[in-house]
Amino acid sequence: MKKEQSRQNRQNSTEKLKIMPIGGLGLIGMNITAFEYNDSIIVVDCGLAFPEDDMLGIDLVIPDITYLKENAEKVKGFVFTHGHEDHIGAVPYVLKDINVPLYATKLTMGLIERKLTESGMMRTTKRKVVKQGQSINLGDFRVEFIRTNHSIADAVALAIYSPAGIVVHTGDFKVDYTPVYGDAIDLQRFAELGKKGVLALMCDSTNAERPGFTASERTVGKTFDHLFSENVQHRIIIATFASNVDRVQQIINTAYKYGRKVVIEGRSMVNVISTASELGYLNVPQNTLIELEEMKNYTDEQLVLITTGSQGESMAALSRIAANMHKKITIHPNDVVIFSSNPIPGNEKAVSKVINELSVKGANVIFQDTHVSGHACQEDIKLIYSLVKPKYAIPVHGEYRHLKAQAKLVEELGFEKDHILLLQAGNVLEINEDSAAVTGQVQTGSILVDGLGVGDVGNIVLRDRQHLAEDGIVIAVLTLEKYSGQILAGPDIVSRGFVYVRESEDLMDEARSVVEDAMEHCTAHHISDWAKMKNAIRDSLGDFLWKRTKRRPMILPIIMEVE
Amino acid sequence: MKKEQSRQNRQNSTEKLKIMPIGGLGLIGMNITAFEYNDSIIVVDCGLAFPEDDMLGIDLVIPDITYLKENAEKVKGFVFTHGHEDHIGAVPYVLKDINVPLYATKLTMGLIERKLTESGMMRTTKRKVVKQGQSINLGDFRVEFIRTNHSIADAVALAIYSPAGIVVHTGDFKVDYTPVYGDAIDLQRFAELGKKGVLALMCDSTNAERPGFTASERTVGKTFDHLFSENVQHRIIIATFASNVDRVQQIINTAYKYGRKVVIEGRSMVNVISTASELGYLNVPQNTLIELEEMKNYTDEQLVLITTGSQGESMAALSRIAANMHKKITIHPNDVVIFSSNPIPGNEKAVSKVINELSVKGANVIFQDTHVSGHACQEDIKLIYSLVKPKYAIPVHGEYRHLKAQAKLVEELGFEKDHILLLQAGNVLEINEDSAAVTGQVQTGSILVDGLGVGDVGNIVLRDRQHLAEDGIVIAVLTLEKYSGQILAGPDIVSRGFVYVRESEDLMDEARSVVEDAMEHCTAHHISDWAKMKNAIRDSLGDFLWKRTKRRPMILPIIMEVE
Repeated sequence: MKKEQSRQNRQNSTEKLKIMPIGGLGLIGMNITAFEYNDSIIVVDCGLAFPEDDMLGIDLVIPDITYLKENAEKVKGFVFTHGHEDHIGAVPYVLKDINVPLYATKLTMGLIERKLTESGMMRTTKRKVVKQGQSINLGDFRVEFIRTNHSIADAVALAIYSPAGIVVHTGDFKVDYTPVYGDAIDLQRFAELGKKGVLALMCDSTNAERPGFTASERTVGKTFDHLFSENVQHRIIIATFASNVDRVQQIINTAYKYGRKVVIEGRSMVNVISTASELGYLNVPQNTLIELEEMKNYTDEQLVLITTGSQGESMAALSRIAANMHKKITIHPNDVVIFSSNPIPGNEKAVSKVINELSVKGANVIFQDTHVSGHACQEDIKLIYSLVKPKYAIPVHGEYRHLKAQAKLVEELGFEKDHILLLQAGNVLEINEDSAAVTGQVQTGSILVDGLGVGDVGNIVLRDRQHLAEDGIVIAVLTLEKYSGQILAGPDIVSRGFVYVRESEDLMDEARSVVEDAMEHCTAHHISDWAKMKNAIRDSLGDFLWKRTKRRPMILPIIMEVE
Repeated sequence: MKKEQSRQNRQNSTEKLKIMPIGGLGLIGMNITAFEYNDSIIVVDCGLAFPEDDMLGIDLVIPDITYLKENAEKVKGFVFTHGHEDHIGAVPYVLKDINVPLYATKLTMGLIERKLTESGMMRTTKRKVVKQGQSINLGDFRVEFIRTNHSIADAVALAIYSPAGIVVHTGDFKVDYTPVYGDAIDLQRFAELGKKGVLALMCDSTNAERPGFTASERTVGKTFDHLFSENVQHRIIIATFASNVDRVQQIINTAYKYGRKVVIEGRSMVNVISTASELGYLNVPQNTLIELEEMKNYTDEQLVLITTGSQGESMAALSRIAANMHKKITIHPNDVVIFSSNPIPGNEKAVSKVINELSVKGANVIFQDTHVSGHACQEDIKLIYSLVKPKYAIPVHGEYRHLKAQAKLVEELGFEKDHILLLQAGNVLEINEDSAAVTGQVQTGSILVDGLGVGDVGNIVLRDRQHLAEDGIVIAVLTLEKYSGQILAGPDIVSRGFVYVRESEDLMDEARSVVEDAMEHCTAHHISDWAKMKNAIRDSLGDFLWKRTKRRPMILPIIMEVE
């Protein structure tokens, strides 16, 4: 679209831009936001979320994209801000429903392509790699990819040009003047856009509660140097996020400086690192990386092990090592184990468990000063607002408390309250130079993925799992003669997760009598309807067990019939 | 025992003092330690632990006191350091097995008596209230109660005099020069004992990883004052620990200063506060406390609500208020909600959920600078060691990482490594002036309490609950003719917590066929043993469901028999 035309469009148009966060607000993860103007829709990011504590047995959570499916002909493509799971993880699931082109920078696309390959979708998916600084046209939109910093390379903010105005979406970002890979965030471009006039800024809220500035990734490198020089006689094991390529780069640099060989362990880390390495985002000096099997050729002080498991995930490499369950690595006394990470809220106890297990085995565990965040703190957020000077502020990426913290910051910067828009997932925000208001709602939600099942576990199944988890199940099974209704076999009482049956035989015998009594009562009152019989069993057995144990197991009556 | 005699005993005796931590080491909670000399055993504290995340459905955890039961005739009594659940919570359970006298300071005993009353054990339990500074004789031991500070009043350290030497046990403590109730910790007495010669110091490790000093409880009062003066137009709701009487005192003081009425909500807080109030540990100005029902007579700016739920516990008052599930209190926009607490590890997500719910309802949530710890930090720990100057250091109270952190501190103070004893629950430490070594092991463990059941939920039941929680249960039930082995009814497939059955009818139909095939296979191979038939069903159905869903529900075959 030519500039002249664009300006005309903007002036003529009474159309507004619609911004629809389909996920990512009010929770951590599942970032996906649709922008709609006339007949064009573009979607920013397509992430997954990890299950909440009450989502028992669920592997991951993906967004409900009903709105996109219903408007599939309008959707011009997905644009991505960076390659983290909460921004790209739902791609293979979503593309099954709506196959449109994907636009991303090189590393981000590399990580997406790994997923597409696993799902056998490479051939059917259109992909275009975009450089930082480049722009693309998508229907009525133009999207510019602006260089930022984050805890993974090749992150971008997006300037989304529409006839209704320019929206800047920061993606996940920090301001790092001395990044490990590539250049610092393109602050000049943010300023230029600000001068031009920005309708709305959608800014990362993750650290909006934290005062000050986020430190440079490079500061962690200095700490590594210090720790390596202090521990020249010991093996060093460092756990960090699989996706933090720059962190791994710094560990490799330090290892090389101190003449150590590096082993990388943990499937997800090996995956990310090999993608990053192939695409040139990781610089490994020759003969530095070795295979796990080669470790035996070196002494402790010649080795660094980089591993997954910094969040205490029970199946990750470090947790298996700590629990003596790793096939090839055991902790040696005086091993130095560095957690180059902070526990994500909810993981504190699991991390502590791993630290305790490592300590008991004689390891020296270090978990301070070896991590910096990938997200902007309060002063960084203020900086971006002061460069972009948008008409409207739309805090994104975070729980409600984080969005509200950014809103408070922005108010301190002098924004009117009605120019700060706290959206919720599903809101339809209609916005242009004249006004901004939530005018409607689109369907959104969390679709639960459990094994191969996508969406087949819902509230009823989850509620049952919670009930089963709490007090187990007691099954009362009996066989009736079809015509007489006489009991031919049973009632048998079978339980799982309720009590240790071998030590509770009396209780089980009494439970059987209770069911027999309930059935006799049914017979005496000529109740032959199965639903009623089952209710009678459920009520009397439930009452009995509650009185005796103060527990409420799931009661499951099963009636069989023989002719 | 006279001093002269005691010295003689010490010289003549080749007996050693045995110290046996029965719980409280390697975990948070369940503090209970036995001291044995000749035919005398005394026990310090008798606490419970809260269930770990994998202890599904468990209400609380108590220690296995087999050793005390087996040596019941030696046990002279329980002495208590303070009235927190992790130090007194197991009393009603343990006294059922071993009824010996209890010794505690007034508030601690008041809280214990509340438990005894609930369990109908007041008449059968001998109790003696001891003052800070007082000593008691128990068999071969003398126990002195030394004034300390903690997050509950009337806390004491114990000097345990035995013919083998003096052991000082700090209990949970902090150094508070300006406590809210009572006097500062009796540092002079610690010094005096140190001069006399202390065999071993058992010191609180909870905060041994934290540098610096623990701030005075009084600093929180200043923050309250500041927050009250800033929010004179709004209702103030403060969540804190039910047992923190001093914190409640400071809130009441501030409320009184600002002319507000105070409502206390949450059963456990009402309980503790009424006990503390009756015993004179809480000073409430007249007409300051009002009942929940009277709130309606006052405007928002005239009210302060003190509530439980600072840890996001789902059934606590604040959580119910935040979720709109409280019968009498709803959040008003601009309510100020103060979390006067830090989240205990593991509770971060639950706390965050409550903060989000409150924020969405327009409350201004404050969760910084309104809490201080009740435990000594590194410099306080160093202070106590420098006063007591024990021969041996025995870090207690904490996970292994905390014990090890204290060990590191003590090493920095110049202790020889072999004079720092890192014990584990169950260790028998034999100690006197000449030596200290772990010489044996007593039975210890966690007994799970679930409803009325004490110990009837063990590993098998927990494993079943975890399995059920993960993928639910699939039951295959059929009725056989006894002599022919012919199927008379079924197989029926019933599932709970596996898939939403109404949308998975095909899967269930196929599952039934799989079971039929397995039974046919058994018939064809003349397999009539039920165990073998059940295995055949379990294997084939499990394989089928894994292939189709990548889930592993519990498979439960039930066979009934009709003659």
